[in-house]
Amino acid sequence: MKPNVRAALLLRTIPACVLLMAPAIVLPAAQPHLPVADSGRVQEHLAQLAHFGADTDDGGVSRVAFSDADVAGRAYVKRLMEAAGLEVRIDAAGNLIGRREGSDRNLPVIVVGSHTDSVPHGGNYDGDVGVLGGIEVAQQLRDRHVRLRHALEVVDFTDEEGGLVGSRAMAGELPAATLDLVNASGRSVRDGIRTLGGDPDAIGHARRSRGDLAAYLELHIEQGATLERTHTDIGVVEGIVGIHWWEATITGVANHAGTTPMDQRHDALVAASELVLAVNVAATELPGRQVATVGRIRAEPGAANVIPGRVVLSVEVRDLDAKRIEAVFDTIRARAGEIARVRGTRIEFRDLEATADPALTDPRLQRIIDSAARGLGLTAMAMPSGAGHDAQDIARIAPIGMIFVPSVGGISHSPREYTAPADITNGVSVLLRAVLAIDAGKLER
Amino acid sequence: MKPNVRAALLLRTIPACVLLMAPAIVLPAAQPHLPVADSGRVQEHLAQLAHFGADTDDGGVSRVAFSDADVAGRAYVKRLMEAAGLEVRIDAAGNLIGRREGSDRNLPVIVVGSHTDSVPHGGNYDGDVGVLGGIEVAQQLRDRHVRLRHALEVVDFTDEEGGLVGSRAMAGELPAATLDLVNASGRSVRDGIRTLGGDPDAIGHARRSRGDLAAYLELHIEQGATLERTHTDIGVVEGIVGIHWWEATITGVANHAGTTPMDQRHDALVAASELVLAVNVAATELPGRQVATVGRIRAEPGAANVIPGRVVLSVEVRDLDAKRIEAVFDTIRARAGEIARVRGTRIEFRDLEATADPALTDPRLQRIIDSAARGLGLTAMAMPSGAGHDAQDIARIAPIGMIFVPSVGGISHSPREYTAPADITNGVSVLLRAVLAIDAGKLER
Repeated sequence: MKPNVRAALLLRTIPACVLLMAPAIVLPAAQPHLPVADSGRVQEHLAQLAHFGADTDDGGVSRVAFSDADVAGRAYVKRLMEAAGLEVRIDAAGNLIGRREGSDRNLPVIVVGSHTDSVPHGGNYDGDVGVLGGIEVAQQLRDRHVRLRHALEVVDFTDEEGGLVGSRAMAGELPAATLDLVNASGRSVRDGIRTLGGDPDAIGHARRSRGDLAAYLELHIEQGATLERTHTDIGVVEGIVGIHWWEATITGVANHAGTTPMDQRHDALVAASELVLAVNVAATELPGRQVATVGRIRAEPGAANVIPGRVVLSVEVRDLDAKRIEAVFDTIRARAGEIARVRGTRIEFRDLEATADPALTDPRLQRIIDSAARGLGLTAMAMPSGAGHDAQDIARIAPIGMIFVPSVGGISHSPREYTAPADITNGVSVLLRAVLAIDAGKLER
Repeated sequence: MKPNVRAALLLRTIPACVLLMAPAIVLPAAQPHLPVADSGRVQEHLAQLAHFGADTDDGGVSRVAFSDADVAGRAYVKRLMEAAGLEVRIDAAGNLIGRREGSDRNLPVIVVGSHTDSVPHGGNYDGDVGVLGGIEVAQQLRDRHVRLRHALEVVDFTDEEGGLVGSRAMAGELPAATLDLVNASGRSVRDGIRTLGGDPDAIGHARRSRGDLAAYLELHIEQGATLERTHTDIGVVEGIVGIHWWEATITGVANHAGTTPMDQRHDALVAASELVLAVNVAATELPGRQVATVGRIRAEPGAANVIPGRVVLSVEVRDLDAKRIEAVFDTIRARAGEIARVRGTRIEFRDLEATADPALTDPRLQRIIDSAARGLGLTAMAMPSGAGHDAQDIARIAPIGMIFVPSVGGISHSPREYTAPADITNGVSVLLRAVLAIDAGKLER
């Protein structure tokens, strides 16, 4: 029996009065007599949202931020928010925010959110699950006439895939120059925010201050295969890894592949190959879950009969600990020095600016999420998020927590992205219970 | 004192009667009382030929076969041939052939040649030196009223850079399909041959039979740096290496660079990097002068944040011995099997058809060239040709010999290609003396 089915069966046996009891009453977290998500409704909303920007042939979606599909998709999300009893507004950054007031106006707001924009030809789960899951939480509260002490906000963030635009603006961390960038929709971020109903000229108004948010929770698909491989229902995210990018240039001497003896070569690709292996070893030889990748490589001049004179490649290192990222890179750089010397080449690294700091989740929220999962009879494990999320920016101003659900095959950013309905329902139920637990004061103790 | 200057001084001290003595008289090869090239004339011809297709800015040349520049350049070469007393014809393959009859009509012809077409944005020495050197030999014979026993032909081969078209036709080895290929001039080989005055529909008429040629000699720049590095005047080519090309495809699994743990990866670029190193080691660990190169590599999808799922790269192996080429490749293939297994990838090799067999030069011609060089007080060394030449095709129907002169920095196929005038004069003088030695019967003994 799948855990969510078991939970649903339990739900049917619980008297309505228990489900509707006042939220101010502190609830034992490990008990199952709490509401769970309506699986059919969540699936219906996911299916409806998938129509906006649907690719014709393969079930994929192209709902790039600021595109007509994004505008239409957000109008649909807004209607869902209103149907769930939320008061909807759009902040200066274009973030779509639905709010349910709490009973105590002095308490900070609990925010749940994610995004509904997609990469070009992406899937229907990345982001969508978190936003529609948040709306389902609000809908459950409305349906069951539960009033929280804290206000609750459900946020559909602006242009996550193009660079976490909405969440960075909410954290007050969006560089002004970003407004001039043109994303895959062909629109500038500035024009795009205006199209969504925001006010890029007053983008500072989107900023929230530390203390404004009691907590931020984000439900998301894992985008990896760890939960699937380990048959685990829920991932309790320990943090979102930092990402550091470098560009390495290996300079040798281009020469005739027929007339240059092996011992007279300064082959940039041979040196580059040793560097690719050094990057792999540097991440593998240390204990821990750091990863390092060379994803892009270009050899010049690039002819079969010419010894490459120059190779340019990307180096990416990710970890939850910025110090460990630096340690891995220090190892790579030291090894590169040896390679350059032995191979008669030059290796230079350029530090690219596309660097994200690690963002740790709040240990108390980790415990709340873990308890919520176990209270539903679900299995849970702690894990890092290797991918970036809106939560990483919000971490600058509030305690964050993230809930992962399994991705089949770990596939993401693809029409083949898929998470089973049962797993989505589990995730939304955990989100709902975590919100209730925070509201019940679990975060304070 | 540079050797060629010394030779020129010696020349001035030799009575004209010695220089003009009947060629039927056997001349001691190791003595300096033989004609040498006219350095000024050869340099003038090189400079004039360089005008045809000259690139505007940097001294390079774009005289791609069949282009207007090629047509005009060959018209100039034809005039030089005529001025040297040669009877000029164009064979069915478009090869420009200047002939000087010999005194004994029963003897096969001695052929000297090379090509005057260039790569796009190439230099002014590759090929040109051999054709103009051959014309200088004929001019010397005419100026000095020397009649050889053998007929002498100077050949400017058609479209060497585009695939040894003229020399393959002369050897009867040009595949019919080659006529349909379009070269860098934008013309098909068929139309191009017609433009040069050949008859592609009767291309078989260009074929020479074994026995028609007493010998084929080609003077060429080294296109490597061995002569320069070892301060050697003349390279006595032992053979033109065979070239074998493969395309290797490494198939792993493309995946998210953030969410895929190091031990769960099937990184095609990591496996490809090991293969690049294996190719290098396979050529280096054996004694000998074989070379192996990976010049081209492409990783897919090629994004910094995606683990490469597929890499395609070129593998080229060259050697004078076809068996050794196979031995090197066998080592590469065996190592690839291990790499694929350990890295959880698949490595497949496709044997490309662009394969040239090794072409050995005639040991007697090697000795004749070596003697001619030493007779001029020049230093000489035996060496392979790592690059391909028209001679390699003619080797199928005649004994071949090749004379190399130093390339500064080993640079070729570039506007920076350069061989000093003194070195060119040395090479032409060796060519002249080798022709005289062959005519004197040195090849028979």
